[in-house]
Amino acid sequence: MTARLLEGRPVADRIRAHSLERAAAVTRHAGRRPRLAIVLFDPDGAAGVYARSLSRAATAGGVEPQLVTPPAERTAVAAALSALNRDPAVAGIVVAQPLPPGLEPGPVLGMIDPGKDVDGATTVNAGRLARNEAALAPATALGVLALLRAYSIPLAGRRAVVVGRSSVVGRPVAQLLLAANATVTICHSRTADIATETRRAQVLVVAAGHPELVGPGMVAPGAVVVDCGITSVDGTVRGDVAEGVREVAAAVSPVPGGVGPLTAAMLISQTLDVAERLAGLPVRRIPDEVLGGPAGNAAAEPGPA
Amino acid sequence: MTARLLEGRPVADRIRAHSLERAAAVTRHAGRRPRLAIVLFDPDGAAGVYARSLSRAATAGGVEPQLVTPPAERTAVAAALSALNRDPAVAGIVVAQPLPPGLEPGPVLGMIDPGKDVDGATTVNAGRLARNEAALAPATALGVLALLRAYSIPLAGRRAVVVGRSSVVGRPVAQLLLAANATVTICHSRTADIATETRRAQVLVVAAGHPELVGPGMVAPGAVVVDCGITSVDGTVRGDVAEGVREVAAAVSPVPGGVGPLTAAMLISQTLDVAERLAGLPVRRIPDEVLGGPAGNAAAEPGPA
Repeated sequence: MTARLLEGRPVADRIRAHSLERAAAVTRHAGRRPRLAIVLFDPDGAAGVYARSLSRAATAGGVEPQLVTPPAERTAVAAALSALNRDPAVAGIVVAQPLPPGLEPGPVLGMIDPGKDVDGATTVNAGRLARNEAALAPATALGVLALLRAYSIPLAGRRAVVVGRSSVVGRPVAQLLLAANATVTICHSRTADIATETRRAQVLVVAAGHPELVGPGMVAPGAVVVDCGITSVDGTVRGDVAEGVREVAAAVSPVPGGVGPLTAAMLISQTLDVAERLAGLPVRRIPDEVLGGPAGNAAAEPGPA
Repeated sequence: MTARLLEGRPVADRIRAHSLERAAAVTRHAGRRPRLAIVLFDPDGAAGVYARSLSRAATAGGVEPQLVTPPAERTAVAAALSALNRDPAVAGIVVAQPLPPGLEPGPVLGMIDPGKDVDGATTVNAGRLARNEAALAPATALGVLALLRAYSIPLAGRRAVVVGRSSVVGRPVAQLLLAANATVTICHSRTADIATETRRAQVLVVAAGHPELVGPGMVAPGAVVVDCGITSVDGTVRGDVAEGVREVAAAVSPVPGGVGPLTAAMLISQTLDVAERLAGLPVRRIPDEVLGGPAGNAAAEPGPA
């Protein structure tokens, strides 16, 4: 058996096309393009790479990127974020990380208006998500759920196992799976026997950041596996799931090309949720037909029963 | 085999004695007793019963209860909460529920300063808990963890299963178990086969609000079972765990007398955490010796391995 590949790029392309339509409608209605502000301190480091890639994704989705580069100093950051929070043309705000030394992520991210926090970086949105209230969620976690929806993977009543408990991926993915009525188990570095847990998964989401952590012996035949790992090894991006898992699982998301392309697409889509709300338009969440493509994706029933 | 009973009352008594000492130290240092404000709208309903019971628990722990009864009208509530937030003598603020018709819990609870939110009712504290940051947690969830600690139940690396996903008990208990390094599974009404999940639990926490939901066939021999159910049936308080579970489990918390007494004790203890911080004193969290009693409780190793 060779697993179906849960390709993220075609799904991201369809989300982007849908975003373009939504952005055009907002622009017609509001008389200006919706804007995504990207706060950046160090254009030369990893944060700069991320900011430029996100800028391109915004443009591709009909959203105007606005690079904001305040001095790396608390008062200046507060003033910049406060202005963005108040600006009605700004729908989304993202602070590119890592932050430079001297700026703590907690206080800086806490200055973002939770209503414009389109990467779910604030404590308030983490709390809303944790209490199953309407929330802006971290984009990678949304990308995982979008990929599962795009390939018609059922979640309600299914056993979902999440490996990794970071605040950025593992924990919010677990909350979203729980909201989708899966029975959710969270494993981590202190789990006594991780293979016993992962082998029970009908849907397995791996977000540990350890290349090849999950081998074929850790996956049940017929399981659906989503790989959130992105570790750079000798210049290549590697996931947390070993190649051999494709011989066991029903479906596996590749790295690169699985969850990765969906992260930016979902961040832009979430920016449009806010833009529509600010413009007084109905929020056009992504319909199943868009995620699944024109013909739709046949349901891949995850096993074991 | 007959399960050991995880009695909450003796533990609550020891927490209370510890709180009395802490309150006395704060009083000496600050020149006034630390205060717990209880906002109450309907003294005649269930909220009134809760408020009076919490007042007694405060007094018993050396904390001065302050009943605040604003008119059930948004501006008045905002003014009352804002005054309590600013008052340096007030360490903790609790809004007694249920709220009267016309007041939404979300906006009202959101007016509590997260730093004085000693029942973990705000979105901000839910977010801190969800991201494993220092948080004020819901008191019942803290009570579950205190009971497990008091009886020396190991959690790190153990399989913990939570039945129920309410924002008040199930979800925060899951977060606290995860923070204690357990491998955590959350089950709920949509779980396909709940018994299969609960039988895998080394530590099983039931917070579903369905009397006798968990019978002996749903529990592994040697498991530790904590029952958070409190449903009134024909004038008697009933838990979620059937009597017969005592023949299978290694340890079971009774209802009443298990988690119940710990809820108020932990709320007062958490009020003293805040009071000590406000007074500039070191925070004296409850040490293991206090929870376990003078002789300590022998470890009850949960099974199955």
